Amino acid sequence: MAARPKLHYPNGRGRMESVRWVLAAAGVEFDEEFLETKEQLHKLQDGNHLLFQQVPMVEIDGMKLVQTRSILHYIADKHNLFGKDLKERTLIDMYVEGTLDLLELLIMHPFLKPDDQQKEVVNMAQKAIIRYFPVFEKILRSHGQNFLVGNQLSLADVILLQTILALEEKIPNILSAFPFLQEYTVKLSNIPTIKRFLEPGSKKKPPPDEIYVRTVYNIFRP
Amino acid sequence: MAARPKLHYPNGRGRMESVRWVLAAAGVEFDEEFLETKEQLHKLQDGNHLLFQQVPMVEIDGMKLVQTRSILHYIADKHNLFGKDLKERTLIDMYVEGTLDLLELLIMHPFLKPDDQQKEVVNMAQKAIIRYFPVFEKILRSHGQNFLVGNQLSLADVILLQTILALEEKIPNILSAFPFLQEYTVKLSNIPTIKRFLEPGSKKKPPPDEIYVRTVYNIFRP
Repeated sequence: MAARPKLHYPNGRGRMESVRWVLAAAGVEFDEEFLETKEQLHKLQDGNHLLFQQVPMVEIDGMKLVQTRSILHYIADKHNLFGKDLKERTLIDMYVEGTLDLLELLIMHPFLKPDDQQKEVVNMAQKAIIRYFPVFEKILRSHGQNFLVGNQLSLADVILLQTILALEEKIPNILSAFPFLQEYTVKLSNIPTIKRFLEPGSKKKPPPDEIYVRTVYNIFRP
Repeated sequence: MAARPKLHYPNGRGRMESVRWVLAAAGVEFDEEFLETKEQLHKLQDGNHLLFQQVPMVEIDGMKLVQTRSILHYIADKHNLFGKDLKERTLIDMYVEGTLDLLELLIMHPFLKPDDQQKEVVNMAQKAIIRYFPVFEKILRSHGQNFLVGNQLSLADVILLQTILALEEKIPNILSAFPFLQEYTVKLSNIPTIKRFLEPGSKKKPPPDEIYVRTVYNIFRP
């Protein structure tokens, strides 16, 4: 039996949360080694465990994968979350890339100055409502299926659901103008593997708080 | 016969230059439609030609591809530049992602304030010399082959060569401590398709100048 993947990252969402989401959606159990100090990061770096000196890093199938997208792609490939042909794969890739651009704003948000945080919530809401959600609403409306691509769960659905739920924590009515996305969110959330991940006690991380922000600064600030 | 790909972007490097590199390396002829005004961008947006309202956009094989990475991945998949199996693919993906992080600094550089530009050159040089180039030097030294992965040209080589040559324009001796990367750069530059792209008259774009920066601001500033 293959060893369970081991995730190396601080105990918070950041760039690793998408990896946790995709593993959970694929039904893969995993372990986590939480980075808490700069010394732990240096130990990983000095031991040549981090290709480009950075986390996220995931030990999986004898490899030490780095770079968020590369980790997501590998897991998606392995667990049949990347479409059935190159055309589907390319659609999934584009949808994921667009959604990651939106998610990036959420990832950086807790590290903004307090004055900028509220402005940035407005910016995120606008981006979501004007640029990204209309695209996905239209796709779902046009084919009437439960998933974005190929009538089955893909990396694009997992990352979009993660992003929608994280946005809803900050802006509860963010989906009010998007009925198909509302229904999609409910249906995806009821997929058994995802449902378990959304329940208390899972490895899903809570919204970033002051302790998380301080930990990240302590570890990564030069 | 399939139509030639058509690239939509301003007449400069930016995020499209990697796409030009990969098409050229693959020996694919392409056409370009240069964005010069905000009105041209709005026309593309209003005609629903840009999935997320943004360029780069590439018309290829009946699709309108967006998101730099997705475009690169599609071309690499189609032209056998993404490895022979999932393990090679994942290595290529990680090397590309790391190199793109470095390339991103070069892409943003002309848009910094003049005072910050010189500091940023120092930062780029440090990142290249400390974080990225040692990784690739070690890979080349360890297997003694001409390419990073699987002994054949891949997306990882193309993006790394693009990045090395662009860095050398700013920091001519950037490879001085990396003999294997020096040799690698010379050998890759002599691959016939790449050699042609490096010669005058190709679709390779010159370093960003004031006109390019002004054009970009005119088109994209809200």
